Formats: sequence, C-alpha cells, structure tokens
Amino acid sequence: MRRPLIAALLLASVAAPASAATRVEHAAVVRDAALAKSEAYPILEDLTTTVGQRMAGTPAEARARDWAVKAMQNAGLANIKTEPFPLKVWIRGAESAEIVGSHPQKLAVAALGYSGATPAEGITAPVVYFADYKALEDAAPGSLAGKIAFIDHRMMRTQDGSSYGTNGPVRRSGPALAQSKGAAAVLIRSLGTDSHRNPHTGGTVATPGTDPIPSLALSLPDAEQLARLVQRGPVTLKLVSTPRTEMGTSANVSGEIPGSAANEIVVIGGHLDSWDLGNGVIDDGAGVAITLAAAKAIKDAGVKPRRTIRVVFWGAEELGLLGAAAYAEAHKAENIVMAAESDSGADRIYRVSSKVSEAGLPLIAEITRTLAPLGIAPTRDNNAGGGPDVGALGRQGAGILELEQDMSRYFDLHHTPDDTLDKIDRAQLDQNTAAWAAATWLAASDDRPLRTK
Amino acid sequence: MRRPLIAALLLASVAAPASAATRVEHAAVVRDAALAKSEAYPILEDLTTTVGQRMAGTPAEARARDWAVKAMQNAGLANIKTEPFPLKVWIRGAESAEIVGSHPQKLAVAALGYSGATPAEGITAPVVYFADYKALEDAAPGSLAGKIAFIDHRMMRTQDGSSYGTNGPVRRSGPALAQSKGAAAVLIRSLGTDSHRNPHTGGTVATPGTDPIPSLALSLPDAEQLARLVQRGPVTLKLVSTPRTEMGTSANVSGEIPGSAANEIVVIGGHLDSWDLGNGVIDDGAGVAITLAAAKAIKDAGVKPRRTIRVVFWGAEELGLLGAAAYAEAHKAENIVMAAESDSGADRIYRVSSKVSEAGLPLIAEITRTLAPLGIAPTRDNNAGGGPDVGALGRQGAGILELEQDMSRYFDLHHTPDDTLDKIDRAQLDQNTAAWAAATWLAASDDRPLRTK
Repeated sequence: MRRPLIAALLLASVAAPASAATRVEHAAVVRDAALAKSEAYPILEDLTTTVGQRMAGTPAEARARDWAVKAMQNAGLANIKTEPFPLKVWIRGAESAEIVGSHPQKLAVAALGYSGATPAEGITAPVVYFADYKALEDAAPGSLAGKIAFIDHRMMRTQDGSSYGTNGPVRRSGPALAQSKGAAAVLIRSLGTDSHRNPHTGGTVATPGTDPIPSLALSLPDAEQLARLVQRGPVTLKLVSTPRTEMGTSANVSGEIPGSAANEIVVIGGHLDSWDLGNGVIDDGAGVAITLAAAKAIKDAGVKPRRTIRVVFWGAEELGLLGAAAYAEAHKAENIVMAAESDSGADRIYRVSSKVSEAGLPLIAEITRTLAPLGIAPTRDNNAGGGPDVGALGRQGAGILELEQDMSRYFDLHHTPDDTLDKIDRAQLDQNTAAWAAATWLAASDDRPLRTK
Repeated sequence: MRRPLIAALLLASVAAPASAATRVEHAAVVRDAALAKSEAYPILEDLTTTVGQRMAGTPAEARARDWAVKAMQNAGLANIKTEPFPLKVWIRGAESAEIVGSHPQKLAVAALGYSGATPAEGITAPVVYFADYKALEDAAPGSLAGKIAFIDHRMMRTQDGSSYGTNGPVRRSGPALAQSKGAAAVLIRSLGTDSHRNPHTGGTVATPGTDPIPSLALSLPDAEQLARLVQRGPVTLKLVSTPRTEMGTSANVSGEIPGSAANEIVVIGGHLDSWDLGNGVIDDGAGVAITLAAAKAIKDAGVKPRRTIRVVFWGAEELGLLGAAAYAEAHKAENIVMAAESDSGADRIYRVSSKVSEAGLPLIAEITRTLAPLGIAPTRDNNAGGGPDVGALGRQGAGILELEQDMSRYFDLHHTPDDTLDKIDRAQLDQNTAAWAAATWLAASDDRPLRTK
C-alpha cells in the first residue's frame, strides 16, 4: 500500500535537500524497509561464522578487522580507516576446579579477564563462603590468608540490565578485595541469569602495583552445587588457571556516509572484540551488524544526510574500554554532534533515552515519534549513557542517544560459551535495526545542535 | 479435609489384610501423601550433591553404592544387597576440536562412550558432511579414507522421546558405519533438543573385532557453526580425544519391603550410574530418588504389601545395560511378577502403559483409575517396554508396567554437563513419585497374575 508514496519520496530526496517534513517521511521509509528485511542478520552470520570469537589484541580480532573493512566496503561506506593502539593482551590458559576430599567432583569454571595464574600444577586450599560482596567487605584483614574466597550473590533478570550494575562489583573488584584480605584465589558465582554449565567470564580490576590473584567464575549450577557442599562442611578445592599477558595491538575501524555538512559527525557503532568463550554474537557482533545494517539501509534508501554518519567498530572494549579511550583521545578535536552505541544484545529496542542540549530535545521527540510504531516508548529523562564505548565522547560533549534494548535474556548468554548465532531472533533484530536506521537518519539529516558542551 | 478418612484407613490396614476396596483406598492415601510432600527431592539432592557424576565402573559409582545402601537403610528397606559384576570401563581423556585454516576456531565436543583415541597430538583431516544417517549409508566404500565424517541430522522435541529412537543410529552405529567406509574419525551433531554449548555424550556400538575410531559429539550450536562453514568451502579439523578403557567392577544394589507372599516380587528402580559430564540428576538420579521415595511412601503409610517390593538400582546402564543383563541372569529363577524402571527424567507422568498377562489387565485398569486424578491418561496398548533396565526381565516373562514421563525437555539435558539439580521442578517430581507410590502399592497388594510367560 505504501510503495507508491515511498517511491515518490525517494525521488524527491534525490532531487532536493530534505525539508523538515520529508526528513520525517524519509525516516519512516528507512524504518519500514529495515523492518521488512534488514541486512543485520547476514552481516552478523558472516562475522560470527567466519571469524568466531574475537578476543582483544589477538589474531582473531585482527581477522575481524579485515572482515570489518570488507563489510564496510560492501555496505558502500567511504573513508574507511583502521586506527591501531597498543594494549596488554590477556590470554586464557588451562583452567579447572576440582573438589578434593570426601565429595570429589569437577566444577565448571572460567578465568576472569586480567586475573592471575596459579602454578601449572594448581593450588589446593580451603574455601571460605561469602553470601555477597558486603559479606566479603566485612571479612577481617588477613582472615583469608591461604584460602579461596567464594563470593555468592543473586542477580535478577531485568529488562534494563540494571542487576548487572548492582552485582558488578562481585566480579570487577571482588578479586582485588579478597586479595587485600590475603586470599590465595577467588571464585565467584557468574554474573548471569541462566542455569547452564557455561561460566560467564568478564573483566576484573586489579589494585595498582599488585599482581592479581587467580580469579574464576563458576557456572550458576556449579555455584549452587558448591554452596550446597559448603553447607555440609569444610570444602577444599584444587584450582588450576594459567592465563598470561603480553603486549599487543588492537584497533578501531570506521567508515562513513559523508554528509553535506561533513564536519558535523554522527557516530554510531558497536565493539568488534568479544570474549573468547563464545562467538561474540550478542556481545557485540549484534551491535556491529545492527549499526552497519542501519547505515546501509540509509544508503539503500538513496537519501543523503546533512551530517556525516560515521560507523565505528571499537576494539578491546571487553578489556576496559581501551578502544573507546583511544578513539576519544584521537578524535577530541572533531565536531561529533551525537554518539550512540549498540551493545546490549540483539533483542527489541523498547525505549529511547538521550543526553543532549536543550536545543536538541525537539529532535529526540521527533525520533521518539518516529519509533513509536515499533512499540518503542519515549525517554524518561535526558541523562543517558549511550553505551560503554561512547561514554568518553559524551564526557567530551557529544550528544548521546541511547536506544535501550530489551536485556531480559541478555545475561543468560553474556560472556559465556553460549553466545552463539542460534540465539538470534531475527524479528527482534530487524526491529532493532529499523529503530537505529530511522533514528540515525533523523539525527544526521538535522541541523539542531545536540552537544552538551 | 481427607485426614480423618486417611487415619481410619491406616488403622484398618494395620489391623487386617487389605480387601479389594481398601487396597484402592490405600493407594489413594499413598498417592496423596507423596503428592503433598515426597522424599524424592531430598534424596535426589543428597545423591547428586555429595556424589555428583557416577560414571560406571569408577570410584564415583562405588561411592554412589555406599550412598545407596545408606539411603535404603534410611528408607527402612530390608534385605539390602550389593551384587557386583565386571565390566570394561571407559574413561574420558583430553578432548578438543579446532578448525584449522582460514577460519580457525574451537568447537565444543565430547567423546562418545567406548569411542577410540587419537594420538595425544591429535589428528588433522578434512571434514566430509552428511546431512543424515542415510546419506552416510550411501557413501561409497573407502570414500572416507583419512577423513572425518560429520553426521548432521534433526532431532525433534517429542513428549514421548520417540525422536531419540529415530535418531539413535547417528550416535550408536554412525561411528562404526563411517569406520567401515574408511573414516579416520566421526563427529555427530549431538542427539539433543537444546541450543547450548554442552555436547551430549552417549554410548556407541563398535563392530566386533575392530578397534573403534575416535568419535565425538558436537554441541548443537557447534554443529550448526560447522555446517555453515562447510557450506562456505572445504573445512579441515584438528581433533584430540584420548579416552582409555580398563577392566573394573560395577554392581546392582537392591533392598526390599518384604511381602506376606514374599516369593512374589515387584521390582521397581532406576540406574545408579550416570554419564561423567553432568551430575546425573535427570539421568538417572531422578529414577533412583522417585522409586526409593515411592517405596518409602508405602512404608510410611504403615501398609504392608502382599508381594515383596524390591527397589533395584542398576549399575552400568549407560555402557550398554550391563547391570540389567547381570541382574536378569542372576535372578532368572525368581518369581518377578512385575518390573518397572523410572529412567526418563523427573517431569510429570502423563500415561500408563503395560505388558502383562490377560489376567493382569484389570490391575492395570485399577492403576489407571487411581492415577487419573494426577492427570495421567490410560495406556494405548499392552506392549510397553518398561524402561531399559527391565527389558531383560520382561523378556524372561516379568509383567511390565511403564509410567510414561513427559520427556519434552529431557533431551535438552540428557547426557550433557547441564544435567544438574537446578533443572528439577519439584511439583512435577512429586506428581511422578505419587504415581509410582500408588501404582507400586496396587501391584504389590494384589494377587492377580501378571507374568507373560
């Protein structure tokens, strides 16, 4: 029914600069075309099948960059650039956990990023149970000398992923906290909401000047098994984990749809690196695919933006936003008017958030109205983060758009071996891509200021 | 509301032999008491927490036997016996699969029972894809020389588990079939219905007089990844699998509620061994717990059966029904009037089946009527198998009762690392136990003949 209108609009768009009316009408065209059939799935399938996992600083991440350059070429982007930066690479070694004594059994574990190593033959030590992070905080100094601290906790399934924020310290600073009390090693219940034997890895933050202790995540069934055994009496564990670090190189990759006001830049993207256990599909192959497919949908619609649309695939997000920091430093002189990252999976967008100047709020309202037919709700406030890799750009003054994804099942898969292609729901992926395409077009075809400083 | 009636019935049962009417009334009492609160969960929790996996012929299975003797004592069973038998034990070694070449990545695999070993450094060979077992059958003799056969297939989610029967040859005889055509090794898509990185192990049958080749199961996401890569061009894999075999000992454990006609025996039970990857909860800790809890429910009701109720925990089921064969041979002279095994998980019973003499059919009808309030449907025919470990007893003439379990999610977990306690739904487990308790009581308090020869 709408096809004749679309054709007329497309002809109009090529013929003349977009008026306010046609900007919004074009957004609907781009939105509906992506919703009907986006390119996100084939892009995601190709990246995660041919490259698989993309651990930061490794040859796999380098293969992903080669893939990214070709994918951006295929999408018709211009000015494709690879911007390298050095980093300390963390490489997983052998790892195992085994209860010794009267209830001998193996537990499924995965070492945490930047955690330290045991000797090759492992360490054997008694387990001390902590019901949560607060309980570990309350442990007396020196009380964990020669012991393995086991930090349990309960993470809830939440649509906005907020329970990851609440429980994040268990993984990020739990190891350093236990080390400060003398612990020989740390086991945490995975930050996750599933019930499979797939531990959730993730980054840790060491206390400066210390060599981090071995720290590993237990799968949720294994954490529950260990908790049951601890209730029955003292438990001794043999732990092996032999990761190593070395200096290496990562890079950010970017490509553009140049705008007529080329020095005004709208940045969208995802991070190219992933953890090593899965295939990096929901984290964050999806963000790469969604934002590249959104750009391609705009290209394919034949409309030309006023602002430059730049798609950025950051490197080494998982090891501490290293690509994001390098990118923000290298591009601080640019006029990045808006930045937005897709890094919360591949399910539906359910809400728009922003952090833009007062003058930019009418644009956000326009985006919200355009996304409403996708079932997307307006923002609650103008204080969004916009995704991990655009945080630094936002602090430099870039306006922030956040298309909030439904994260209800994200932490079933996040940082696990289970982050694989079969988890993708194509209808949700296409709704997501449609929202990104329409919102990006509206921001890039506009001239209202968005920067907050 | 029913308590006064129950108390009256229990008093009556102690005072006098059960009449036809009170037999059925007692069955309802036993059923409802188990439904309200069965002992199955604490029994299952204890076995699978304190022992964990129970691979046949290993020290873990021996620990499970010690546990079983104590659990039968706690349940008040008499005549507790352990009957050892020798077996060839299969012990998993190191195992890995890695795509080499332009798309290098690791795949999640698990070696199959009684499969052969690669050299310690592994083998590297091209992959030949077969869409199903039939396609492998059609391969020319010698055509797989030096190659790795990958057998794909599609298993469906079915309530009665019938898709496992249909696809069973992929795992059981696929390796020997590929070997007969020269294959160096075999990879199969796991026999499973889940989408997690947990391969499903299971038994294989070697061609007599041959040394089996290495054969491994891919998790379903990995099988799909490999299938996508094969579509893109030739794939070469490096496989490592170093299992070994050695002679060892397993055993069957049994205990009884002696009946007044003690030489008529009703056998119920499950198998004590499990695969090594998970904790053997649904396969078959649940069968052990359900049948022991059913016997305990009968004991706790204070009713005394006419026939002896014997609870049997078979050993080494997973390695080819070895305990079942030893048991049937050792007990062939006994008058086992009925035999039934619980070995299909821990979810609800949905249907009664049987294979009994004509004279026994009224008893089956009585059982069916008594289980109807649990939502359980009558049998379709009188040709049931009764569970793997009672097949041999049935062939010797024992009447067979089968309480068919809802297997809709059984093959998500079966033979995987994911067979863990968190998967148990206590309401379903108690319904299951209630059905077993009532059916066992009805069969054991009866005098109608059931044997088929």
